[in-house]
Parts: sequence; C-alpha cells; structure tokens
Amino acid sequence: MGFFTDYPCSDARKFLLLWCCLSVLAVASLGSKTRHFKWQVEYLYWSPDGVENVVMGINGRFPGPTIRAKVGDTVSVGLTNKLQTEGVVIHWHGIRQFGTPWADGTASISQCVINPGENSVYRFKVDKAGTFFYHGHYGMQRSAGLYGSLIVDVAEGKKEPFHYDGEFSLLLSDWWHKDVHQQEVDLTSKPFRWIGEPQTLLINGRGQYNCSLAARSGNSSLSTPCTLKGSEQYAPQILHVRPNKTYRLRVASTTALASLNLAIGNHSMIVVEADGNYLQPFSTTDMDIYSGETYSVLFTTNQDPSKNYWISASVRGREPKTPQVLTILNYSPTSASKLPPSPPPVSPRWDDYDHSKSFTNKVLALMGSPKPPSNYHRRISLLNTQNTINGYTRWAINNVSLSLPTSPYLGSIKFGLNNAFDHKNPPDNFSSLYEITKPPVNPNSTYGNGVYMLDFNTTIDVILQNANALKANVSEIHPWHLHGHDFWVLGYGEGKFSTKDEAKFNLKNPPLRNTAVIFPYGWTALRFVANNPGAWAFHCHIEPHLHMGMGVVFAEGVHHVGRIPNEALACGMTGKMLMNNNRN
Amino acid sequence: MGFFTDYPCSDARKFLLLWCCLSVLAVASLGSKTRHFKWQVEYLYWSPDGVENVVMGINGRFPGPTIRAKVGDTVSVGLTNKLQTEGVVIHWHGIRQFGTPWADGTASISQCVINPGENSVYRFKVDKAGTFFYHGHYGMQRSAGLYGSLIVDVAEGKKEPFHYDGEFSLLLSDWWHKDVHQQEVDLTSKPFRWIGEPQTLLINGRGQYNCSLAARSGNSSLSTPCTLKGSEQYAPQILHVRPNKTYRLRVASTTALASLNLAIGNHSMIVVEADGNYLQPFSTTDMDIYSGETYSVLFTTNQDPSKNYWISASVRGREPKTPQVLTILNYSPTSASKLPPSPPPVSPRWDDYDHSKSFTNKVLALMGSPKPPSNYHRRISLLNTQNTINGYTRWAINNVSLSLPTSPYLGSIKFGLNNAFDHKNPPDNFSSLYEITKPPVNPNSTYGNGVYMLDFNTTIDVILQNANALKANVSEIHPWHLHGHDFWVLGYGEGKFSTKDEAKFNLKNPPLRNTAVIFPYGWTALRFVANNPGAWAFHCHIEPHLHMGMGVVFAEGVHHVGRIPNEALACGMTGKMLMNNNRN
Repeated sequence: MGFFTDYPCSDARKFLLLWCCLSVLAVASLGSKTRHFKWQVEYLYWSPDGVENVVMGINGRFPGPTIRAKVGDTVSVGLTNKLQTEGVVIHWHGIRQFGTPWADGTASISQCVINPGENSVYRFKVDKAGTFFYHGHYGMQRSAGLYGSLIVDVAEGKKEPFHYDGEFSLLLSDWWHKDVHQQEVDLTSKPFRWIGEPQTLLINGRGQYNCSLAARSGNSSLSTPCTLKGSEQYAPQILHVRPNKTYRLRVASTTALASLNLAIGNHSMIVVEADGNYLQPFSTTDMDIYSGETYSVLFTTNQDPSKNYWISASVRGREPKTPQVLTILNYSPTSASKLPPSPPPVSPRWDDYDHSKSFTNKVLALMGSPKPPSNYHRRISLLNTQNTINGYTRWAINNVSLSLPTSPYLGSIKFGLNNAFDHKNPPDNFSSLYEITKPPVNPNSTYGNGVYMLDFNTTIDVILQNANALKANVSEIHPWHLHGHDFWVLGYGEGKFSTKDEAKFNLKNPPLRNTAVIFPYGWTALRFVANNPGAWAFHCHIEPHLHMGMGVVFAEGVHHVGRIPNEALACGMTGKMLMNNNRN
Repeated sequence: MGFFTDYPCSDARKFLLLWCCLSVLAVASLGSKTRHFKWQVEYLYWSPDGVENVVMGINGRFPGPTIRAKVGDTVSVGLTNKLQTEGVVIHWHGIRQFGTPWADGTASISQCVINPGENSVYRFKVDKAGTFFYHGHYGMQRSAGLYGSLIVDVAEGKKEPFHYDGEFSLLLSDWWHKDVHQQEVDLTSKPFRWIGEPQTLLINGRGQYNCSLAARSGNSSLSTPCTLKGSEQYAPQILHVRPNKTYRLRVASTTALASLNLAIGNHSMIVVEADGNYLQPFSTTDMDIYSGETYSVLFTTNQDPSKNYWISASVRGREPKTPQVLTILNYSPTSASKLPPSPPPVSPRWDDYDHSKSFTNKVLALMGSPKPPSNYHRRISLLNTQNTINGYTRWAINNVSLSLPTSPYLGSIKFGLNNAFDHKNPPDNFSSLYEITKPPVNPNSTYGNGVYMLDFNTTIDVILQNANALKANVSEIHPWHLHGHDFWVLGYGEGKFSTKDEAKFNLKNPPLRNTAVIFPYGWTALRFVANNPGAWAFHCHIEPHLHMGMGVVFAEGVHHVGRIPNEALACGMTGKMLMNNNRN
C-alpha cells in the first residue's frame, strides 16, 4: 500500500472488527485476567533511521511488543535475558506497583538485575486505565532501544469520559548512531565527553536520517527525498483514518534527551489524558511532550479528505540539530503514498519557553479527579546543579550526586542491612543563599546513595528547584519522574521558590502525573502521599542526566512489603546474607 | 629518549639494579608470600594503534598491570567491576588452580560472574615458574582488551636451567576498530556476519594503524611514516639492550584470532620454555606462536652495536590483511630513535604450513621433565566442524556446539543439581565415515552443554581432529587450550587419525603444554592426567570460535573440591538453591 508501512492496527475498519472480536473474547472471560507475555531481550541489527545499527530489541523486533491490558488485569512478562554479558531489567513506566514493589524494574533500587541466560517473571496488576510505556532501567539500556508501549484500557463495562472511533499509539524516541556503551563511557570520562544531540527522532522506532519525507513535496529544498518501498524498518507507520471521525492518539515520549513538540498539520487536538490521568479537555494546535510523559489527544478528521496531512515531532528546549520526524495522516480513500501538499507543521522556536509554559499550565485535572491533601507533612526542596567531582562532570541534588549501590535498596532496607548504602539521610533543603542564576561558585559535589525515608502515609511536598548549569547562562529543562506514585503538580514558577509562592499553589484541580518538568531557572511544586510500601526512584528522565547522578531515592513503609522474590534479592548484600545464613 | 617509549624495565643496568634490590627484599621476606593486587576493571578511551577506541582496561591502563610472583607465592587480586552493566571474570591462563578451581575465572564453568559494582578476590597459588598471562573469559571481553602478563619466577634459591642477563616481556594481541559488543552481535546474527581480520597487531598493547615505523627507513614505500613523540599510547615500547649479553624474551599471545610469526632482525633465538614448561633448547630465526601459547626465547646481542634492529610479528595461517607490527631492539649506546637500517624481518608465507610444522615439531621437553604415563584409560576423539543450527553459523565438537549454561558447572556438579546442564555425556567419538577433507554433508548440528565426566586420577588421551569448514577447501588452524592442567603433546599428523598413528606417538620427551594447535586437515594427540578436582574448559583459544561453540568441558573429582566461596555460587541454580534453603 503505497511506499509507506501501514500502521499495523490503524485502519479504522480493521480496528472496529478487531475491537468487536476482542470484546466478545473479553466478555467471555468475565472480568479481569492474566495477560501472559514471553520476551527475549537481545541485541539486533536494525535500521531505525536508514542507518544500520545495533539496537536492544525484544523478540527480534524494535521497539518491543505493545502490552495491552484492562484495568484489574495482571500482566505477566516472562523475560529471558539473551544478552551476552549484560544484566537487564524492565521498568513499567507509570504503573504504581501497589503490593509488588519488587516488580518496578529499577536496577539497584527494586531488584537485582536478570543475568545473561536467566529468565524472570514480572507480575503486576494494572489498576488504572491510561497510556504508559516500558523501558530498560539499567545503565543506559533505554537509549539502546529497550522500550515499548503499554496501554491499559478501562475495565469491562466501564467507559472512558470521552468518545472516539479509533486510536493510534505513537511512541516517540531519539536515536544516536554512536553505540550506547560508548555513550556511557563518554559521560563517565575525564575530561567529560558530551554525547551530543541525537541524529534522528523516531516515531514508533522509525525515522529518516539521510532523507526527508517532505522533500518530495517540494517543501524541503535542503534534503534528499526518501525513496521508500514501505517495507523498510525506517519507513514511517502511516495513520489511516476515515473522514469525519474522532481518533484518540496515545503519545508517549521515551526520548533519552530530547523534549519534543508534536503537531498534526491542519488539525487541532483536544488533550484528554496525561500519564494515565484524565484531564480537563483543552484544545491545542501543537503540544510539548517531555521524556517520561504520556498524553492522549483526540482529533477529528474534519479536513479535506482528498489530501493527506503531516504529523510531526521536533526538538524543543535545546538548540535543535536533529531534523523533525514525520509521518502521514492518510484520509481514506486517498492513496497513502500521496504526500501532503502543505508543508510540515512549523515547530515553535526551540527556546520559546512561554509557548511551553502556556501549554503546561493548561494541563489540569478533569473535574471529579482525586484532590490533593490540603496540607503536607514534610517538604523536601531539591536543588539540581551541575557539578564536578574529581574532574568528572556530574549532576547533583542538594549537592549529592546519586551513585547507585550494588545491593538494591528494597531488599537492603527490608532486611536492615546497614552497610548497603549511606545511612545518613540526604538533605531536605539547600542553602537559601545559593544563587540559582549563576554557575555554582564551588562546583565540587559528592557522590552519595542515601535514601529519603518517608513516614508511611504522610503527605510529601517536593519543590524542584532549577539553577544555572556549569556554563554561564545555561539552565536546562529536566522532566522529573517518580516511581510508585502519581503526584499532584501544584504549580510552576520562575526564579527561586519562596514560601510566598505557596499562595499560588493550585489545590483545586492540579493534574495528577508521574512526570513533571522544571523549566530553566524555575521551580515546580509537587505533592504526593507516601502510601506505597517500597523503594522508589525519583529522577530526571533524561537518560544521560540520570547516568550522571541526577536522581534521589524515596522509601516508605518497607516493613509492610510482602515476601520479596528471591530473584530480586540474589545479588549484593541481600544475596550474601541469604546464602551465608544457609551455609553457616 | 628518542621518539619512542622506553621499555619500562628494559634497560639492562636499571634491570640489574632493580634485580639486586628485589633480591635483597626477597631474601629478607624468607620464602613465599602473598602478592596483593587491587584492580578496577572499566572501559577507557585508549589509542592502541593511533585510532581512539574504547578498550577494557584495568586501573586506568591498557593492557592491565603485570603480575609478578615467585613459585610458592599466593597471588591475591581484589577486583572491582566498574563496568556499567556487564559482569566480569578473569582467567589466569596457565595457572592450574590446584585446590582453588573456583578461581579459574571462567564464566559459567568455574564461577558466577562478578556483577557491576561488586568486588571479589581471586586467590591462588602459583606453583610453577614460567611465562603466563591473564585475560577476560566472559563473552568476548578478551577481545575488548581485558588482558595482561603474569610472570612466575623460580622460588628463592632456585635457578632456571639457563642463564640470562636481562629480560623483556612481549604480550602479543590483535585489535579491531569495531566495538566488541557489535562483534558479538555479528557472530550471533542470522545471516552470519564475520568480524573480518584485525585492523592492527599489538605488542604490549601498542601498534600502528595508519603509519609504519619502517616507512621512514625507506623500507616500506607503501605506507606513511609514523611521526611519534614517544609519549603516544601507540608508540612502540623499545627494548634497550647492551652488546654481548643474553636476554630472555617472554612472549605470550592473547590474540583473538591471529596466529603470529615473531622474529628479531639479524638475531637468532633459542627457545627454552613453552607454557611454563622447560624445553629442550633449540635455535630458530623466527617462531610461530598461536593464541593461548607462551614461550621464552633467549637471544644474544652479538650484532653490530652501532645499529638498531627490528622485532616483528606478522599474521600466519590466514591470508594476512593486517600489517606486520614492529618494535625496535636498541643497542646501547646507539640512539633509540635511530631506525634499523635493515628491512624488517620477512614473515614466511601465510600458508607455508611446513614451516609451522617444522617449528612445532622442534618443541620438545627438556631432559628430566615429567614423562607421560605410557598408557591411557580413556580416549576422547574430538572432531571439530563448522556447522549451521537454524541458520546460525556455529562450530561444533562431535556435532555438539557448546552453549554455556547459566549455572556454573563447578557448583552444579558439586551440589548435584541435575537440571543445570545436559546430563547426557557428550560423545567420545565421531563417525569413522566422516570425510574430513570435504565440507560437512549435513551441516546441521545441535547446541549442547553436557560435560565429559572424567574418572579422577585416570589418564586421558584426546585426539583433536581437524576437518574442512563449511566452505570447500578451507580448514583453519585451531589452538586448543586446556584449563587446570598441562598435557603432553604426543604428536601431530596429517589427515584422519587412525590407531596406526599411535606407533608414532612421542612418549620419550613430549612437551608439556596447556595449548596445542591442530593444523588444517590434521590431528593432534594429547595426554593428561585428570588429577585436578574441578570443572575445566577445553576450547579453541580463538575468541570468535569459542563464542561460536568451539569448546567442551571436562570435570573430575568434584567431590574432592573444598568449600566453594559463596561468590562463585551466587547465580543460577546454585544461588537459588542456597537462598531457597534458607528462606523455606
């Protein structure tokens, strides 16, 4: 069909048919069930953008298979590590893992890694409908391509608070031609080597490096037109639609670095969901999406059906050196190979933060959503700075650069292994004299792996405070992601947070999210209830930033955690303890 | 000094002085002692041949530090794995590990790998003087650069059976610019991708890719002369000598693929040691050395001291696409920067196997060396073939392609874990009808991980039988290395081995070795006594060949093995068993 790949489940008719079949099956099964998946993780030669490279794939594919389940289901993924010498874990981004904190898939935090040749089962309940994804959480294996979509539908008999006729899922990522192992060495080298901007942006693992889809339509005089048969691994997945229908677009960003702006040419979008939480619907012509975020938007196919339209994603917040990635919205019965006559959407200027903030401020909870407690028990203010330690470039939070321990926290805390990590709590605050608009006066920092021990069931406020990086007049965007919880985003502000800013907190309809951005030189205020027994990462979702220490660990109610499976404990001090006990 | 790096311990005067000091210290210590080393294994940017690359280094250096000890000493290496996501082990090549089979450093065989962030101590006795080396034995980490020299001197008060005034150590290797992770993917891809010939040969981790040392002397019109300051990581280490002295050259080959020919321009060599065993001295102008082998040769500085001389190593046995590597023998007081006036030694034709066999047949034990038992208890004939399994290209032994298990054999056997590996013994023989001169009629093979269980203290004969590879008229060289033992090499022959060939076995003065080559279309007969309780790899020392299944595992007397340290058991089924026992 044309020279582009069909979107696999996108034809509306096919979709409806499939939906009917699935509905019958679902009714037959009477309620929730266990969805079984069997995965092999391995390196593959793949061509995400026309340049052959090694990617980390699942079951011989990149990206990994989509998980689809219904609220109340149990997802069971039997994973075999087919890598040669590397361990692996998978994090189920947005799934809170109530009762199964060992299945959160974070190396050094929730579990021991799955060693080469071994298999292990991730088993967890999905308790909330929404758009999620999964990805590696060890070293920089997410950057290597270890990711895929995870969609949770409402339970049988339940309805979403909006209507749509069909849906598509767009998993956005960025791609480097440099081997990820080498990127890891770069970031930990002295002197520091920056990995640079991505070569390509990918939609569902597909982008174009050496050519442009838009060039053929005469809209990009600078680049070579793509000559695609459609069967290429890097051919775009086309979204086939019928006129005058409403579609749900599920968008998730698993980029390693890039903040993105997504748009559909000539179509406006209604934003209805973020990170698995319903939003007060609002309309937009383009949307910013940061690494770790997910959205659902609705769009109506109310444009001229004799034409096709571009869907685009471009870099935001960093001076873009990476071309826009495109795919096509194909109106039935127009041929899918007909290129859109209009130029691709023009992204806002990369540093137009007003545009970003305007979008972000519109993200508010749907009426009837859970409200935050009106007071907090503990406030943790986290200043992020770029630092140096013995000549290494690092990121630090309140002057501590996270260096993960060998023994995962969950087991260490549960078994009271005092030497497994720093037992001094990391600081709840930073000096009020710190000048956030300037490079650090003393860029020295220290490595640390202490834990913020949270009293169970208390309400925690986190103030994320941005600052100037090592270089003058540079302050970067950081999307912070919390494991095991959603938080309410109480507000965003400019400059240094002060208690006076509390008056501006939105306690009425703040959005519930698992990821929130801090803008350059700004602050972001979050509130959550520490009600999920376990040990949970809270970190910048930019892969190199986390790798350079930009994260903290929260833990709460670990004594309530049930029997941690042996596999999650079979390393480091927990492994030693359990084996020693037995042999002595 | 000139534009080349000085050989660090090579100046004879310095050496003598150092030797005097060390002697005094050694006498003061009265006998054997423990030599402590503290190592960090990590990836580094390095320039082994002028092209910057990522190498696996130790303590910030490539190659790793030299271990030097005396017979009777205990070597203790505390190793910290500073890799990001990869396990690591180190094999002490040539050390038999009597009483410490868990310290042999072979992943899946003797121990669980050391996980990232963890540290572990290798502790073993060195009971025999000689030239050894160490290297990674997990995935293809040896190819990544994880290797170094290990020299064992005679015990205090003992003497070598030959005299020398000074010594040098040359660790030979080959180097690819392609990342080793990618090489691993290549070899396990469908269709198969061959890694190709190495870009560069290295002497002590130093080679020259884009230039030739010899070009400046006008002897190589084709290549660019090297312009070296001497401080470069790829500048050759010069061997500084004084006239009319005798030097010992310790040579070890840790190549991933290349068989080499070593020569010193204008100097003949007396071969005196192989794999830590003394030889009947013989003279040669050049020597072949295969991966996994070590030699000591003596040479006398009896040439014109106003000149310098080339030392060279070149590829043998494969059509060479890799330039000769050179360094310089510098006669005092001639300047080290003066290039040798003679052309570098000319290597024998790559496929002149008669030359190789002539050298190999001269390798015989020094009079008084231990003799082999005159009879064997069990003969194992191992046919090596190149095969395909489900479209993957593999090597197989008696039609079984080794696929290592997740649980190391040593622990599995000791604890009787029946499901940890195939319990059917692999075959002791192959069909007498197999036509070794032709590609396999049925190239299919099977994966396997069974063990050759050897009766303790019995004498085992192994007949290694070479054959044609998948492609017609191709039969490759394979140097086979045995862990935990030396074997006597009873003979080499052409074609298919038959019992009549036994008459030609050398039972009088066969050399003791740990590595022996099989020539194309030939056989090699080995004998050893299964007197070392443990589980031991026996495999082709060509890294990609082992990675493609070219090995077997022997085990003997495992019930005599002492308490295996927990660290060596903390994975797979042994780990599960010990943890389960405790928690149930």
